[in-house]
Amino acid sequence: MAENKDARLKVITTDPLVLETPDHLLAANRITPSTSLFVRNHHGAKHLEDMLPRPMVGDIEISGLVDKPTKVPLSELAKLPKTEVEMVLQCSGNFRFQFSKLSPIKGTPWNKGGIGNVRFAGVRIADFLKAAGVSISADAKYVTAEGADQPEKAAQIDYEKSVPLDVVLARGLLATELNGSLLPAVHGGPVRLVIPGYYGNVQVKWLTRLRFETRETSNFFQLPDYRTPKKRIEPGTPIEYTFDNSDPNFDMKINSRIFAPADNSTVAAGTSVELKGVAWNDGAADLVSVEFSQDSGASWKTTRLAASAGPYAFREWSTSVTFEKGEHSLWLRAQDALGRTQPIDGGLFWNPGGYGWNAVEKIRVMAV
Amino acid sequence: MAENKDARLKVITTDPLVLETPDHLLAANRITPSTSLFVRNHHGAKHLEDMLPRPMVGDIEISGLVDKPTKVPLSELAKLPKTEVEMVLQCSGNFRFQFSKLSPIKGTPWNKGGIGNVRFAGVRIADFLKAAGVSISADAKYVTAEGADQPEKAAQIDYEKSVPLDVVLARGLLATELNGSLLPAVHGGPVRLVIPGYYGNVQVKWLTRLRFETRETSNFFQLPDYRTPKKRIEPGTPIEYTFDNSDPNFDMKINSRIFAPADNSTVAAGTSVELKGVAWNDGAADLVSVEFSQDSGASWKTTRLAASAGPYAFREWSTSVTFEKGEHSLWLRAQDALGRTQPIDGGLFWNPGGYGWNAVEKIRVMAV
Repeated sequence: MAENKDARLKVITTDPLVLETPDHLLAANRITPSTSLFVRNHHGAKHLEDMLPRPMVGDIEISGLVDKPTKVPLSELAKLPKTEVEMVLQCSGNFRFQFSKLSPIKGTPWNKGGIGNVRFAGVRIADFLKAAGVSISADAKYVTAEGADQPEKAAQIDYEKSVPLDVVLARGLLATELNGSLLPAVHGGPVRLVIPGYYGNVQVKWLTRLRFETRETSNFFQLPDYRTPKKRIEPGTPIEYTFDNSDPNFDMKINSRIFAPADNSTVAAGTSVELKGVAWNDGAADLVSVEFSQDSGASWKTTRLAASAGPYAFREWSTSVTFEKGEHSLWLRAQDALGRTQPIDGGLFWNPGGYGWNAVEKIRVMAV
Repeated sequence: MAENKDARLKVITTDPLVLETPDHLLAANRITPSTSLFVRNHHGAKHLEDMLPRPMVGDIEISGLVDKPTKVPLSELAKLPKTEVEMVLQCSGNFRFQFSKLSPIKGTPWNKGGIGNVRFAGVRIADFLKAAGVSISADAKYVTAEGADQPEKAAQIDYEKSVPLDVVLARGLLATELNGSLLPAVHGGPVRLVIPGYYGNVQVKWLTRLRFETRETSNFFQLPDYRTPKKRIEPGTPIEYTFDNSDPNFDMKINSRIFAPADNSTVAAGTSVELKGVAWNDGAADLVSVEFSQDSGASWKTTRLAASAGPYAFREWSTSVTFEKGEHSLWLRAQDALGRTQPIDGGLFWNPGGYGWNAVEKIRVMAV
């Protein structure tokens, strides 16, 4: 267990370190405390598993399709303007247990806690490149990021990730702070690649190198890992992924959670009960409504939305319901300005990796 | 005016011939009668503007990336099995007036009647190619279709359209019948390329040639015409389209209509009023609900859905409402199994061609 992590996190594996955040810790604050934040490492990097900041020593190497490849000391970051963004950090395998019910899936057996909402701060990559005096070739379309972690066995593949250059330049950060403090090692400190709106797999920890390239890397973690099929397949169907027949797990799908009441909990009948939770998407458009249904989708009512904390952050919602005695079903869905909402049956998106579940949240409560 | 077309169609232009179907004709039957069906021609092909069938003479040429280019006489089609599909036929510029309110747009000034729901029958293109003994190269990714119509002036560009080969092979038809009769000339007879789920611009009339190619044609009607930007732009923003920054208008966006009561009509207060209309999408997933709101989106109720007439057809919905005296707002939206629904504010998708409007339908009625 990572030093100074909340002991109530669920330990999924220790090598690599994978910790899940239980609902009551997510529900307690819109901002997930660093000590409560889930962890998903890929290599057993024991020296990088504590909650302490690492010194700002070392370099970030800039290579590939640039006019002059160079190494920039991390100490240079302190001289550049810092940007802070509140954002959802979520593993694309979050909710994987839902897909696994339809057909077994390997991979981290996430329940609903491979997610948090945090504030990352750091230097915009566009600013960093400008300060480094580096010009990128017009042929470069992707940035491939490498981190300091290494596989422990020679036969294992080192983690790296390619992301579209235009997105990196528009909103990519070299994050050095988490929730107002120096970025803990277990969350990628001293420097982590952070792209708001994207799933966690692109948020490369312990960043050491940015390679500017014409296409996505052929590294295992780019393909076939972290891919979903472009066309729907029946649960259990194997698929040999290619760059053409699959999509990488980049943009987070629109989704929502009911934090209170808890699933299968008991509530008081005949009195007003507060319902609350959060919704989020990829930041490409505003969330316009979060709606709940007490009749399995026959009718929907909108909830109150709290003020937005930015396009990439958890959007809090709440409403009040008076329940009659008995068992009740509660469904929840978010909708955004682009007309994107959550499917009733998430199983339609079953995929062998179990990525991107975003179905309508369905819980049951007993009113007594 | 095309011979034997319903005189109540709205004549938008006569050269080329463009006719729009008013709501009351769409509302009368789930299947739009051939005489009521909208018309959108691209060239002033006077000899192709009547409602008579054309004789099955001539060839379809198969060329490009095939093992043996050939010409197949139309008479061969009668020897092959016929498939019928009920499907929405819709110009991607339908509802263009909604975009035009935000910033003026050239192009056919469609209201809401550039649409119909019909039965096309014909030979599956996959079967046709097999019967012709033609093998397609693995390098072919698109089929470019040409029709017999020609521009009247040398400076004008002949219409042609490229569509993805896998889609053509999966569901493309060489249609020779419309609503159980031979396909009238004005609707593309004797043979029209028909791809259920796609917008009208790909349903090439008077088909004469199929070219198998590695990429989309650079013809004007493929690019820049009939394109929408991949990234949203502000109304009025010009954009120079490229294959990279734009999408062709292929898959129909999820959409719905209220046919009764009519917008701005008067209904009886205090008694049950029937609401009805249709919904549709691209056929990629079932429609799971059609919902109406009487409080501008604060709450939504599902309507009754009629049995499906197939994935590409109009899906009829109905419900009953008792109105209090006064003015009422009615909103309508469809949702499909993939979690796709209609945006509240369609203007977010403004584009210089005014294509693909699919916002929530909003009407007003006065109850007296």
